[in-house]
Amino acid sequence: MEKNRANQPIGMFDSGVGGLTLLKSIKNLLPNERLIYLGDTARVPYGTKSPKVIRKFSLQIAGFLEKLGIKALVVACHTASSTALSDLKEKMTIPVIGVIEPAVKKAVNITKNKNIGIIGTRTTINSGSYQSLIQKIDPRISITTVAAPILVPLVEEGWLNKEATRMILREYLAPLKKQQVDTLILGCTHYPLLRHLFTEEMGQSVALVDTSTETAIYLKELLKEKSLLNNSTTSHDYSFYVSDDPEKFSKLAQLFLGEKLETVKSVSLEE
Amino acid sequence: MEKNRANQPIGMFDSGVGGLTLLKSIKNLLPNERLIYLGDTARVPYGTKSPKVIRKFSLQIAGFLEKLGIKALVVACHTASSTALSDLKEKMTIPVIGVIEPAVKKAVNITKNKNIGIIGTRTTINSGSYQSLIQKIDPRISITTVAAPILVPLVEEGWLNKEATRMILREYLAPLKKQQVDTLILGCTHYPLLRHLFTEEMGQSVALVDTSTETAIYLKELLKEKSLLNNSTTSHDYSFYVSDDPEKFSKLAQLFLGEKLETVKSVSLEE
Repeated sequence: MEKNRANQPIGMFDSGVGGLTLLKSIKNLLPNERLIYLGDTARVPYGTKSPKVIRKFSLQIAGFLEKLGIKALVVACHTASSTALSDLKEKMTIPVIGVIEPAVKKAVNITKNKNIGIIGTRTTINSGSYQSLIQKIDPRISITTVAAPILVPLVEEGWLNKEATRMILREYLAPLKKQQVDTLILGCTHYPLLRHLFTEEMGQSVALVDTSTETAIYLKELLKEKSLLNNSTTSHDYSFYVSDDPEKFSKLAQLFLGEKLETVKSVSLEE
Repeated sequence: MEKNRANQPIGMFDSGVGGLTLLKSIKNLLPNERLIYLGDTARVPYGTKSPKVIRKFSLQIAGFLEKLGIKALVVACHTASSTALSDLKEKMTIPVIGVIEPAVKKAVNITKNKNIGIIGTRTTINSGSYQSLIQKIDPRISITTVAAPILVPLVEEGWLNKEATRMILREYLAPLKKQQVDTLILGCTHYPLLRHLFTEEMGQSVALVDTSTETAIYLKELLKEKSLLNNSTTSHDYSFYVSDDPEKFSKLAQLFLGEKLETVKSVSLEE
C-alpha cells in the first residue's frame, strides 16, 4: 500500500504560469516524481484579489487534484500560500506545503544584519504571512515590506529588460534600500525572471531569496519523512491542466520553463 | 404590461470596476432609469483571457442579471463586447448592447483622413471586432491597432501621472503616431482615465473616442424604439454586485465614478 502511494503523483497549483519555476526545481531535485500541475489561468491573477475568494478557488483546485489521486499538494502560488494554506491543510488528508515557510527559513538563516525585506503581491503582503512567521522564528528581525502589483503584468508581457520595468522596480525597491535590508525575499513566482534587475538595483551584497529551490528541498524532506518518495526510475511523467486556453499557457510556459509544453489539458474548475 | 417592463432596471456588467465610466454616462443621460451593475472582480481582468472563457463568464453573468428582471443588458466591458455579444444576443430575449458599435459609428463619422487607430486589450484587438465593423461601414478606412495590456494594471494602481506610465504609453502609441491616425478609439473602459496623457502624446489634433457617451446615446435610442424608456421620475435606483470583495470595489469606484459607493453586494457567479 505505502509503495503504491509513493508511486502516485504530486499535485501542484498556481494562479497561472508562474509556478512553473517551482516545477522546474522539483523536477531537478526529484527526477523520479510524477507531477500534475494546474494553472488557474481563467481567474489569474490572484494577487489583487481577496483572501476569501482565493481560499474558495484554492479549495476547488485541491478538490480537482485530489480526485486525480495525488499523494501530496504543493501550493506554488505565494498569494494562495499566504491566504489558503491552513484551510487546505484542514480539508485535506494528504500533506500540503506552501512556499512561505521554506523561504522564511532560508532568509532568517542567511541574514547578517537581521534586516529582511519582502516584496510580493498586495494580497500576499497584506496577509502578513511572511511577516508573522519571521517574527515567530526571530522577533529581533526587522522587516520591510513592499507590495508590487505592476510587476506580474510586466513579466507576463515579457518586458524583462525594458527601461519602464527598471523604473518601476526602482521605485518599488526604494524603501527596501533605504532600510538597508541585506536579504530580500522574492515573494512571487514571477520575480525571479527579473532577478538581473533586482541585483542591479539592490546591489550584489543583498541576498535574493528565490523560494523555488528552498521549497523543492522542503518537499523532498517531507516526502522522505512520510515514506512517500518515489523510488521507481521509470514512472516519472508530467501532466498540465489549465482553466483557460491551453495554447496560450503553453507559449507562456517557455518564458518560465525554457521549453514549450506539448500537452496541456483544459479543465473547468467551477462545476 | 409594457409600462411595467419600462419600469424594470437596466442590467450592465464589466469584468471589474471600469464599466462605471459608462454607468456615469448612462446616469447623466437617463436619470430616470434604474440600473443594476455587476463587476466580475473575482475573475478580472478579461483582456488577457481567451474568447471561450469570456463567453462562458458573460453568459453566467447574463443569467444572474436576467433573474433580477432586467429589461435590457449593456455589456460595458470592451473585451466581452468584442467576444461574447453575439452569444448573449442569441441566448437572451431582452435587447443586448455592447460598446463596439457606438464607438465605431462615432469614429467613422469624425475621421477626416480616413485613418483610425484602435487601442485595447490583447483579446479585444485580436478579436477583430472593431476592425471588421469599420471595414463593413467604410472599406476605404485605414486601421492601425495596438494591444496595450499594461495600461489596465497601471490605471488600477492609480498611477495616472507617473513617468513610467507616460513612458509605457509613449511606446504603445508610437505606431499610431507613425501612421498619422486622426481618430483614436479608446477601446477599454480604463483608458479615459489616462486621457490627459493620450492627448499629450498624440497631440490636440487627434480626436479621442471614448465609448461611454456614445453608448449611452445608443442605449437611449434603443429603449425609446422599444418603448422601454422609464418615464417615472421617482423610481431610479442603483444596485451594485461584485464577485469578489465589495469593500475593495467600493474604494476603486471612487477613481472611476468620483464617489464611494455605499452598498455593494457580493455574489457567487459560478453556481
